[in-house]
Amino acid sequence: MRLIGPMTNRRLFELVTDDGCSISPYAWRTKFALALKGLDYETCAVGFTDIPAIGSGAFSSVPVLQDGEQWLGDSWVIAAYLDDAFPDSPRLFSCPAERAMVLFFEKWIASEVISQMFRICVFDIHNRLRAADRAYFRRTREARLGQPLEAVHAERDRYLPILRQHLQPMRLALRQSHFLGGDAPNYADFIAAGAFIWAGSVASLKLLEADDPLFEWLGRCLDLYDGVGSSLSLPGFGL
Amino acid sequence: MRLIGPMTNRRLFELVTDDGCSISPYAWRTKFALALKGLDYETCAVGFTDIPAIGSGAFSSVPVLQDGEQWLGDSWVIAAYLDDAFPDSPRLFSCPAERAMVLFFEKWIASEVISQMFRICVFDIHNRLRAADRAYFRRTREARLGQPLEAVHAERDRYLPILRQHLQPMRLALRQSHFLGGDAPNYADFIAAGAFIWAGSVASLKLLEADDPLFEWLGRCLDLYDGVGSSLSLPGFGL
Repeated sequence: MRLIGPMTNRRLFELVTDDGCSISPYAWRTKFALALKGLDYETCAVGFTDIPAIGSGAFSSVPVLQDGEQWLGDSWVIAAYLDDAFPDSPRLFSCPAERAMVLFFEKWIASEVISQMFRICVFDIHNRLRAADRAYFRRTREARLGQPLEAVHAERDRYLPILRQHLQPMRLALRQSHFLGGDAPNYADFIAAGAFIWAGSVASLKLLEADDPLFEWLGRCLDLYDGVGSSLSLPGFGL
Repeated sequence: MRLIGPMTNRRLFELVTDDGCSISPYAWRTKFALALKGLDYETCAVGFTDIPAIGSGAFSSVPVLQDGEQWLGDSWVIAAYLDDAFPDSPRLFSCPAERAMVLFFEKWIASEVISQMFRICVFDIHNRLRAADRAYFRRTREARLGQPLEAVHAERDRYLPILRQHLQPMRLALRQSHFLGGDAPNYADFIAAGAFIWAGSVASLKLLEADDPLFEWLGRCLDLYDGVGSSLSLPGFGL
């Protein structure tokens, strides 16, 4: 789906590890959104310490989307822009109530799932970062966690069953449909798949039990849009 | 909103305590749905042990809706029926993706919230039931819980902080809109309000901290549709 070259004046700035792996869960939301809409883009790999230099210097996180003269940060802002600017492509949100419910989903996955994935993977992320980013990452994340990264890493076996248990509402919902959005994927699938890809790319242990039914849903998401995620290496899921 | 009388051939069978309090969280979903659609109905108060005698005897839970010749059980089946049968009234689900996301919301609230409310309130519910229902309720619920009701009740102070913590995704989503459905309530609000009304009607302790921002949302739900819930006694919320 991603066409890199002179055909596009659209650029997505995303966080990339030392070995070229895209690891922002938020940038993945935008990558899925662009793929749904069939919009091509050039990817611009940045590290944490490059973010203040993007565009006019107004951004403190990725993704950042440059679309011609437009500069946009924050995956929700970008999603609203894409629905407004490209009304003839498939919509990210079919109705306001869908968007409101996806917002609830995001609050749930952030507080119950991503928070646990973060603790399990934080030291693995650190070790994959470009050398220039490691000190920044350690300082800011240790302040957030209140512990050295190594101490959080040493306890990751304790967070793993919590993560798996917290995913239960997703398993139950996915018993009734192929995607969180129903028969077709919606932005909740993009949010969840983004988190799974982010954690799965870096985790040095298996995040799910081998027979977890979430594997089927994850495979369906990776196969979307001509396989937007099908060639990814996701050691955290044995893929 | 509820018009009891000869004007309607629509009857809602719902679970009622010895003192006339409607306590099925699922029946409340249907009561809100009927109110949104402006459909009047007669309420038929039943106890647990009356359920097998409803209609043709095909039902094992409430709500049951009788609409003329139609008999419907299960709040999701009833919701689909109401949207199909009354297409000119406001829709419960604006698009399939909204319904899918509300389904996720229901799985979340069942596994994370209602399960804790149930443990906190189970003995209070028992004590409010009609005498004929108490033995049935004790037998089935003790089998589900694996403990005597009194033992669960004795530990309810332990479940209370878990319940309050589990509600955090709802608090975060409701920072951004008046209802879970956005500017207007949707079926997720009806599901959540049904759970809050059910637990709040019977709880003999305060389910939320006094400054919990969820009170504002709950008040808005109780005031909906000419105050469908505004005259309820909800001791679990000090109302």
